[in-house]
Amino acid sequence: MLPEVNLGISFFSLSTNIVPIPHPNPDNFLTFALQNKRNMSYRSHTCGELRIDHVGKNVKLAGWVQKSRDLGGMTFVDLRDRYGITQLVFNMETNAGLCEKARSLGREFVIMIEGEVAERSSKNPDRATGDIEIVVNDLQVFNPSKTPPFTIEDETDGGDELRMKYRYLDIRRSPVQSKLIFRSKLAIETRKHLDSQGFIEVETPFLIKSTPEGARDFVVPSRMNPGEFYALPQSPQTFKQLLMVSGMERYFQIVKCFRDEDLRADRQPEFTQIDCEMAFVEREDVLNTFESLTRHLFKAVINVDLPDFPRMSYDEAIGKYGSDKPDLRFDMPIHPLNETVKNQGFVVFDNAEYVGAISVEGIAEEYSNKDIKKLTDWVQRPQIGAKGLVYIKYQQDGSIKSSIGKFFSDETIKEWLDQLGVKPGDMLLILAGEKDKTLKQLGELRLEMGRRKGYLDSSEFKPLWVVDFPLLEWNDDSQRFYAMHHPFTAPAVEDIEKMESQDREVLKNLKANAYDLVINGAEIGGGSIRIHDRKLQQRNFDLLGFTPEEAEEQFGFLMGAFEYGAPPHGGIAFGFDRLCAVMNHQSSIRDFIAFPKNNMGRDLMIDAPAKIDEEQLKELQIKLDPKVK
Amino acid sequence: MLPEVNLGISFFSLSTNIVPIPHPNPDNFLTFALQNKRNMSYRSHTCGELRIDHVGKNVKLAGWVQKSRDLGGMTFVDLRDRYGITQLVFNMETNAGLCEKARSLGREFVIMIEGEVAERSSKNPDRATGDIEIVVNDLQVFNPSKTPPFTIEDETDGGDELRMKYRYLDIRRSPVQSKLIFRSKLAIETRKHLDSQGFIEVETPFLIKSTPEGARDFVVPSRMNPGEFYALPQSPQTFKQLLMVSGMERYFQIVKCFRDEDLRADRQPEFTQIDCEMAFVEREDVLNTFESLTRHLFKAVINVDLPDFPRMSYDEAIGKYGSDKPDLRFDMPIHPLNETVKNQGFVVFDNAEYVGAISVEGIAEEYSNKDIKKLTDWVQRPQIGAKGLVYIKYQQDGSIKSSIGKFFSDETIKEWLDQLGVKPGDMLLILAGEKDKTLKQLGELRLEMGRRKGYLDSSEFKPLWVVDFPLLEWNDDSQRFYAMHHPFTAPAVEDIEKMESQDREVLKNLKANAYDLVINGAEIGGGSIRIHDRKLQQRNFDLLGFTPEEAEEQFGFLMGAFEYGAPPHGGIAFGFDRLCAVMNHQSSIRDFIAFPKNNMGRDLMIDAPAKIDEEQLKELQIKLDPKVK
Repeated sequence: MLPEVNLGISFFSLSTNIVPIPHPNPDNFLTFALQNKRNMSYRSHTCGELRIDHVGKNVKLAGWVQKSRDLGGMTFVDLRDRYGITQLVFNMETNAGLCEKARSLGREFVIMIEGEVAERSSKNPDRATGDIEIVVNDLQVFNPSKTPPFTIEDETDGGDELRMKYRYLDIRRSPVQSKLIFRSKLAIETRKHLDSQGFIEVETPFLIKSTPEGARDFVVPSRMNPGEFYALPQSPQTFKQLLMVSGMERYFQIVKCFRDEDLRADRQPEFTQIDCEMAFVEREDVLNTFESLTRHLFKAVINVDLPDFPRMSYDEAIGKYGSDKPDLRFDMPIHPLNETVKNQGFVVFDNAEYVGAISVEGIAEEYSNKDIKKLTDWVQRPQIGAKGLVYIKYQQDGSIKSSIGKFFSDETIKEWLDQLGVKPGDMLLILAGEKDKTLKQLGELRLEMGRRKGYLDSSEFKPLWVVDFPLLEWNDDSQRFYAMHHPFTAPAVEDIEKMESQDREVLKNLKANAYDLVINGAEIGGGSIRIHDRKLQQRNFDLLGFTPEEAEEQFGFLMGAFEYGAPPHGGIAFGFDRLCAVMNHQSSIRDFIAFPKNNMGRDLMIDAPAKIDEEQLKELQIKLDPKVK
Repeated sequence: MLPEVNLGISFFSLSTNIVPIPHPNPDNFLTFALQNKRNMSYRSHTCGELRIDHVGKNVKLAGWVQKSRDLGGMTFVDLRDRYGITQLVFNMETNAGLCEKARSLGREFVIMIEGEVAERSSKNPDRATGDIEIVVNDLQVFNPSKTPPFTIEDETDGGDELRMKYRYLDIRRSPVQSKLIFRSKLAIETRKHLDSQGFIEVETPFLIKSTPEGARDFVVPSRMNPGEFYALPQSPQTFKQLLMVSGMERYFQIVKCFRDEDLRADRQPEFTQIDCEMAFVEREDVLNTFESLTRHLFKAVINVDLPDFPRMSYDEAIGKYGSDKPDLRFDMPIHPLNETVKNQGFVVFDNAEYVGAISVEGIAEEYSNKDIKKLTDWVQRPQIGAKGLVYIKYQQDGSIKSSIGKFFSDETIKEWLDQLGVKPGDMLLILAGEKDKTLKQLGELRLEMGRRKGYLDSSEFKPLWVVDFPLLEWNDDSQRFYAMHHPFTAPAVEDIEKMESQDREVLKNLKANAYDLVINGAEIGGGSIRIHDRKLQQRNFDLLGFTPEEAEEQFGFLMGAFEYGAPPHGGIAFGFDRLCAVMNHQSSIRDFIAFPKNNMGRDLMIDAPAKIDEEQLKELQIKLDPKVK
């Protein structure tokens, strides 16, 4: 039986309850009904397209009320749709009823109007439609709106949480909407270009198998196979390699991937990759193909001609910039100082494995002792972790001020400065300690000083291929190697024989045929030439601590495939969210995602995740751990 | 510590172990290494592009050995890549060593060759490269191949399960590979067209919230929110509606969707939709927009000009063809016979709620009594479920043979036949019973007779919009209404007021503003104009048996959004897998999916789903039901 309800005339009285308007057919569904019966479409033009040439034309527009101004005899309404804003004008003298109705319109009401395009007396040169306005002769309200919880303007007063909860309103704001439109453009240009290069987009499955290697998987219990689980893919890696074994030769996909990681500020549990793989290629083929894609995207979408894509080895990037993704919008390289400053009696330098410095232009006079104290605090923060900071100011007058004057003579220091090409007015900042850590700290310090100098405000783009990554990373805690890229990455050709070594130091120094694309210090993508030989793949799993049984259980299908004529192949994946952000000089990916999750992995708008019915758990034959309330 | 391993020269001896070839650098990784060192790319041309104009050119090709023929002095090898097949020739006289090596090549070995293009003496007109062959002067083997478990030819000897297990080999077969390439083309043309029409592709989230309405969800336990689950989307329905509230106006997405249903032969737990939504539209706007998309796809991808897209009401489709997705490649309509045949003393007709017939051309003489007996068995199968079959043969000589001669005179029957336009040579097949069931049975019988007549072999395409679906379906078992399309579908404008009725019969007759695109009897897509009014949406939930609390908990975010200026909107979703199949006159979607699952939802290649570690379950704070072994 149906529940007892009596809605009376509620559908028809809905908007009248909120905005009483004495109009014959003012309301939501009735309006909609009449509309349909007349079989007319909702608009003749968008709110972004009317110009002076249209003056005198009768038009029909639909959209949202951006704002309205009541100037007594006249009421002006800004009508907004995706395409722009058009000014409407209602005249109390010529049509009082309609003008009254217009006065009652609130922000974000959805309306349709008909009227005549007229030339504006006071034009608005900042708006594409600023030469005209519409003298309205008919107005229909499709839907009223409650007062939005934050202003729907370019600058809003809404906080992050509130904007995520009402994301559908946040997207009405032009800065957010334009980012989503940008993303759509970027995706279609990616597809057009890769299609033109003979790439085939193949959809790989989302319900796959969990593998303990790599990040944590999201899993999906299988009802039809009780006790078993699918996993959501962290990437389509094995499938794209299988597609190469299949002879697809050039594969791509713009695809969602999933990682159940504790979320840092700018991570999302689901993210999007431009995922690619090619057969019969060497590193340079892949690099050139994706340099060409990147150039196309920058030109087609933001009309930027990218400069050269230099190649830099991982070792050089770390040694020179303290990072495997150096921002090359400015140079400020790290100067290794071991040869220069050690064994001269200063215990901090003498005891350090590594001493290095960066030279910052023209700040010697500008930085007070207090500033240096603050900078020292900054490098000593746990996120950076330096023990201390040595500074040397090369004053404009040629004199030296430093924190190590007690240990080195001005002459000695001047010799260093000359050697390093430091000029009067510059300041040298020195860190010392364990080599890897100190280089990383210098890398962070370099970025911070670049930021302070305004070098990061540059609107230019500096791409870079970082190549020759290490194959393996040793982890002291678990006493095993991890793959630096992933377990399918081929070693550098000249290191293949060394894969057989039992010597951990030899293995630590193995190079991978792996590469990253870096733009302005952000990792846009990474890839590698893959192993296509079963024995070599098995050896790599050995090195990563897999027993032969584990390797077979988890990746037997791939190693099996290698026995049926696997071609040489390699590929790359671009972080699509990141690419969107970098092309817009934004640091956060979140606004390029229509419905992002917060740092707890929650969608605040739909309130997910959520509890599910007992019935569902029963069907899946799983139980909640009793500890969970 | 590392496990003890000694691979010796195994990488380099791998292929020699299988195919001993006395060549200085025959093997996998060493070849690969030298290749890289020479910094040459793997090929100058594909195996599909060389023509008579290339004769005399030195070329380099890479690919798979399709087959080889050893004719004593000469060895011919067909080399295959994604683009075609090229014949290689090795001459024992001019290069014995190389010819020996070529003789040892097995099927599916991956090789690279260099050689000179030569004109063939016996040309092969069936092959694009059939005018030429390559006289090979260098051969490198990248990877050998075990004998494939089935033949890699257009027609294969592999069964379904075997081909799914070795899907990477199945995809090497041209009929499968070409289907995936077709799919990729169709996707890019879809995107290009919708982009040209101002649609924005927006990625909606995959980790959303489970809703009990509709099909069963796949769920994903949340580690960060113990005891809570995400669900994988059955469609992006609510998100696309929210995007309309957001002012995106024209949204689309080619997107994976998920349903945990018991799988029928041609269902997959993950499938792909072209998902669309538009604001400020009426039904005809949506229909015209997607008729134009469909026309574009057929023209651009298979060069077919589609005929008209007629509109037919649901009631007409059911009444005339016994199906809401009639195949219009042939007519053979159902003739309702209640007025004609009832109350004349034949109890089978008199007691039936409904009597109807189809007339099949030119088979009166052809069908023997035995054939009719078989056809009667066919309609009585449980899948069809008719009680019996009445036939009337209108013989070429004008005489009548029927199974109801005892009850009706030949004159009476002839009157019926004339009235229905049945001609000599035709046979009338009559079913009687409960109306809905009998119409469905007649629909099935119509399709079967069409199939037998060869009408379904037609290569033409007959599109059709079915419109005016019922809004609600009453379920006797659960004593409640279900949404025929989904709970967000707007009622027909003229039925809005009737939504307030308490009368079940009135409610059963409510029409929805919903529509399906049908091509050749397959449902390609379906959609509707949506409700954009909170009160009406709430009333619809009431009718579907939701308490106000349940409605709020599950869809409060959407109803909330309707209060902030929701525009009128509607949309549609096309089944992308189905569209691929229909455009290729295929009945199964499976081959258009790169890595499909079997009827138990298993991926036989990667062997998923699978058990996961205790550790993973612990982190997720779930336990397997102890009943699960």
